[in-house]
Amino acid sequence: MLHNPASKYQPFVPVRLTDRTWPDAVVTKPPVWCSVDLRDGNQALIEPMDIERKIRMFEQLVKIGFKEIEVGFPSASQIEFDFMRKLIEEKRIPDDVTVQVLTQAREHLIRRTFEALEGVPRAIVHLYNATAPVMRRVVLNMSEDEIVELARTNAQLFKDIAAEHPSTDWTFEYSPEMYSDTEVEFSKRVVDAVTEVWQPTPQKKCIINLPTTVEHSSPNIFADMVEWTHRNLLRRDSIVLSVHPHNDRGTGTATAEMALLAGADRLEGCLFGNGERTGNLDVVNVALNMYIQGINPGLDFSDIDGIRATVEYCNQLPVHPRHPYVGELVYTSFSGSHQDAIKKAFSARKESDIWDMPYLPIDPKDLGRSYEAVIRVNSQSGKGGISYLLEAEYGLQLPRRLQIEFSQIVQQEMDSLGTEFTAADLWKIFRKEFGMDVAQAPQYRLAEDDGVVTLNAKLHWDGQERVLEAQGTGPIDAFVQALSQSLGRQVRVMNYSEHAVGEGANAQAVAYVEVRVDDSHTVFGVGMDANIVSASIRAILSGLRRAPAVQTVAV
Amino acid sequence: MLHNPASKYQPFVPVRLTDRTWPDAVVTKPPVWCSVDLRDGNQALIEPMDIERKIRMFEQLVKIGFKEIEVGFPSASQIEFDFMRKLIEEKRIPDDVTVQVLTQAREHLIRRTFEALEGVPRAIVHLYNATAPVMRRVVLNMSEDEIVELARTNAQLFKDIAAEHPSTDWTFEYSPEMYSDTEVEFSKRVVDAVTEVWQPTPQKKCIINLPTTVEHSSPNIFADMVEWTHRNLLRRDSIVLSVHPHNDRGTGTATAEMALLAGADRLEGCLFGNGERTGNLDVVNVALNMYIQGINPGLDFSDIDGIRATVEYCNQLPVHPRHPYVGELVYTSFSGSHQDAIKKAFSARKESDIWDMPYLPIDPKDLGRSYEAVIRVNSQSGKGGISYLLEAEYGLQLPRRLQIEFSQIVQQEMDSLGTEFTAADLWKIFRKEFGMDVAQAPQYRLAEDDGVVTLNAKLHWDGQERVLEAQGTGPIDAFVQALSQSLGRQVRVMNYSEHAVGEGANAQAVAYVEVRVDDSHTVFGVGMDANIVSASIRAILSGLRRAPAVQTVAV
Repeated sequence: MLHNPASKYQPFVPVRLTDRTWPDAVVTKPPVWCSVDLRDGNQALIEPMDIERKIRMFEQLVKIGFKEIEVGFPSASQIEFDFMRKLIEEKRIPDDVTVQVLTQAREHLIRRTFEALEGVPRAIVHLYNATAPVMRRVVLNMSEDEIVELARTNAQLFKDIAAEHPSTDWTFEYSPEMYSDTEVEFSKRVVDAVTEVWQPTPQKKCIINLPTTVEHSSPNIFADMVEWTHRNLLRRDSIVLSVHPHNDRGTGTATAEMALLAGADRLEGCLFGNGERTGNLDVVNVALNMYIQGINPGLDFSDIDGIRATVEYCNQLPVHPRHPYVGELVYTSFSGSHQDAIKKAFSARKESDIWDMPYLPIDPKDLGRSYEAVIRVNSQSGKGGISYLLEAEYGLQLPRRLQIEFSQIVQQEMDSLGTEFTAADLWKIFRKEFGMDVAQAPQYRLAEDDGVVTLNAKLHWDGQERVLEAQGTGPIDAFVQALSQSLGRQVRVMNYSEHAVGEGANAQAVAYVEVRVDDSHTVFGVGMDANIVSASIRAILSGLRRAPAVQTVAV
Repeated sequence: MLHNPASKYQPFVPVRLTDRTWPDAVVTKPPVWCSVDLRDGNQALIEPMDIERKIRMFEQLVKIGFKEIEVGFPSASQIEFDFMRKLIEEKRIPDDVTVQVLTQAREHLIRRTFEALEGVPRAIVHLYNATAPVMRRVVLNMSEDEIVELARTNAQLFKDIAAEHPSTDWTFEYSPEMYSDTEVEFSKRVVDAVTEVWQPTPQKKCIINLPTTVEHSSPNIFADMVEWTHRNLLRRDSIVLSVHPHNDRGTGTATAEMALLAGADRLEGCLFGNGERTGNLDVVNVALNMYIQGINPGLDFSDIDGIRATVEYCNQLPVHPRHPYVGELVYTSFSGSHQDAIKKAFSARKESDIWDMPYLPIDPKDLGRSYEAVIRVNSQSGKGGISYLLEAEYGLQLPRRLQIEFSQIVQQEMDSLGTEFTAADLWKIFRKEFGMDVAQAPQYRLAEDDGVVTLNAKLHWDGQERVLEAQGTGPIDAFVQALSQSLGRQVRVMNYSEHAVGEGANAQAVAYVEVRVDDSHTVFGVGMDANIVSASIRAILSGLRRAPAVQTVAV
């Protein structure tokens, strides 16, 4: 059994911001996006990216449209340092992209960091130190005053070193680490001390980043904290307020969204939420949540499967089949009622309509996905899904009652096999059920005279070659008459429909007939042929073959 | 490029509940949990569970402590019907567990559903019909009045059929489908009509379930909807208000948590968030979020890896390595600064302390996880992680400066290999670096007389056998003197520590010495031996071997 948690864990202490405004706020424009895939994402990998993978990730991020990219922690290892140098020396940083690097608030690391940036046209240099109580007490063993002094001293060092390199356009960023777990008043105190040193202006802002290093509280509590901070920081008009959520409670996306409502201007995160432990904020998720609200996120995910492939290659970790917007299964419905609704809504939808489709919050085509995966058929599926797949893949427009009849046949196969059926599987069952492979093409001659059609036909039936001749109002009527006269079978056509499948020389006609046989059974028959008459004859024979007792009737 | 979304998608329309109370609410007790793994989860699988898998999942859910379990959709397929019969006929339902089944609001399906339940001691029968505008318009083609009538008629049918089976203790549940996408006023109208028929009482409540069939809006908007509904439904005191979130926007967990703040009493979801598309609510996530707030969720996840194995077996889908609370990597830190902090916090923590550990929101041991995976070493790691692993796995307590020295050695290996190092890898590097495998045990004799120790020793050095004799204040001092006299090497011991590794007959002493050699180099040496004097001598030789120029000094 689980422990009694009350003796071991304590509830988070909310800010109690009773005059909060964020629940009434509405996001109307995208934040500044900053990718930390190459830093926070990379440091969480079992195998960190090698240089080739780093380059590939960097180029992917640029292609998506990130304008701020944290590329590493150059003072932490030689590989990180070398990568920064490579980007600079090989001039791989586009003019509209700013690289960002992280450093701890320690002098030798800061100096090494600026060394790595030598000659870069513009850069964000990101300073952090621990501020949370557990870190002050256990890790740093420093008082609040000492922490403020640590931040101030290192902020000054930033300023001094940057001043020695005036040819680079520097932006400073500061993170009070574990903001999410620090008293808001103390975070403000440290941040105010840092901005007092940096003296940002509305024209030359600094970035203040609030990391949910570990997600401790629910998104509404975090939003209250951010709104408090947003309202109380000094020099707010000279600050880009950034948040950096993680996902330990599984609420990283919501945390980011509510932080934006609460006053944040900028988000740091990774593609598909890679990152330490449960991951960083999934920036794709937040951006596409905006997109389906009619807001252009300014990031391009129109080839989401290509992006997934790059991310899986670089991170050497899979993206889950149910991952929002990108997983293999996220646009798939297996359930019959869902499939029915989707099928109807697709039929009713006009191209110019606002997207309002049941079970599909986004049009998969907008992300470069096809509709193929939207409906998949297993034992939970109904006629809607089966018909959808046969129509989507084989062009068949089954009449409604035939949909029902065929779905029951599929259901029986499913119940015994218990697996998923592809469109090809369904097509095979369909062809078998309606005898579409065994039936030979009938040979026939038609003559019309004064509204009377005479049909001469030759066909194999019950192992014999039969010669049929009869008259009727049309070919179908004549064929039905012939069956009655030559085979002694009464066939009444209750319903008939036919449509073309394919185009041009390869076009086929498919005929569906609902036939009443010997006044005792009503069944469907299906026939397919390049010739519409042959297709109809095949369909009638198909129905006749499927009617019970056909084998026992004497001919 | 992505489309301009503004022409295709529209923002959600919030309820604008300006007097909302949920942002100030605090959850203090767990909700009623209902697992829908066997229904909503199952219908989303590529291969739905066979009977054996269903039984295994059912038993797992019972073991975790679910008291309400939706087991299927018996009217949808024979396998679902048979499974319901099997549970009943083989008396597999524990006395404190209530099974739940879902049915569409259609007479033949409802009759078939009750047929499947024949003889069950107690059951929740769950009725739903579409209420959302897109469903009314496109799928059902029904007016609002017709929808209300549909719900009312089928609610009455429930009541009538149930009355014919008085030996079962029936609970009714109703879901307005796509509540999340339906006008709250209309949902209320339909629900009120249903409860008017059912006439629940505070003693015999019915369940009203609000499905986020597809997640359209952010959790705060949904919370406003739920609070509105909670306040406005008729017969609220006779209703268990349930929510059923999905995860299309990646905010299912937050949605559930805010719905609880807003007045919901009950949650429907699946283990690790399996379910249609992006999945159902992950009930494990919500339950453990409560747990780390000091609230006992009433569900037992103390063998979370065992549960994961069952879920992966039954669903035939993987759980992602970063999935909150259960993924392989979620308690792992690779980064040096994180590892340092964890190591210090573990050292400082007393058993009775409230859990407040950096980078670990929950104690992995509470979920049956070991600490082994907490720290893993790759090129992002620092001395903290390396030392932690050597201590955890090999019992080594490295002095701080040795940690730094050794971590630089590991870093170099990392930078060239770019991969993750296990504890065993680190141990191998450590043994090699400190010559622990090549060094032979020194042979020596000690004699102490009036505080003066005389040491006679024989050792291999530079391929020769050397005989040493010297005096000192103790064995180490004497050995150092001997080195100076016999080998011409000046060795000063700057620091020395020794500790036992292992217990009893297998115990070994490990000695760490920081030696200054020839007044030019300060290095660490490490020696391990069953004998503490031998360990120290080995350590000094290890340091001497590592000091530069040792090969070029004439002896």
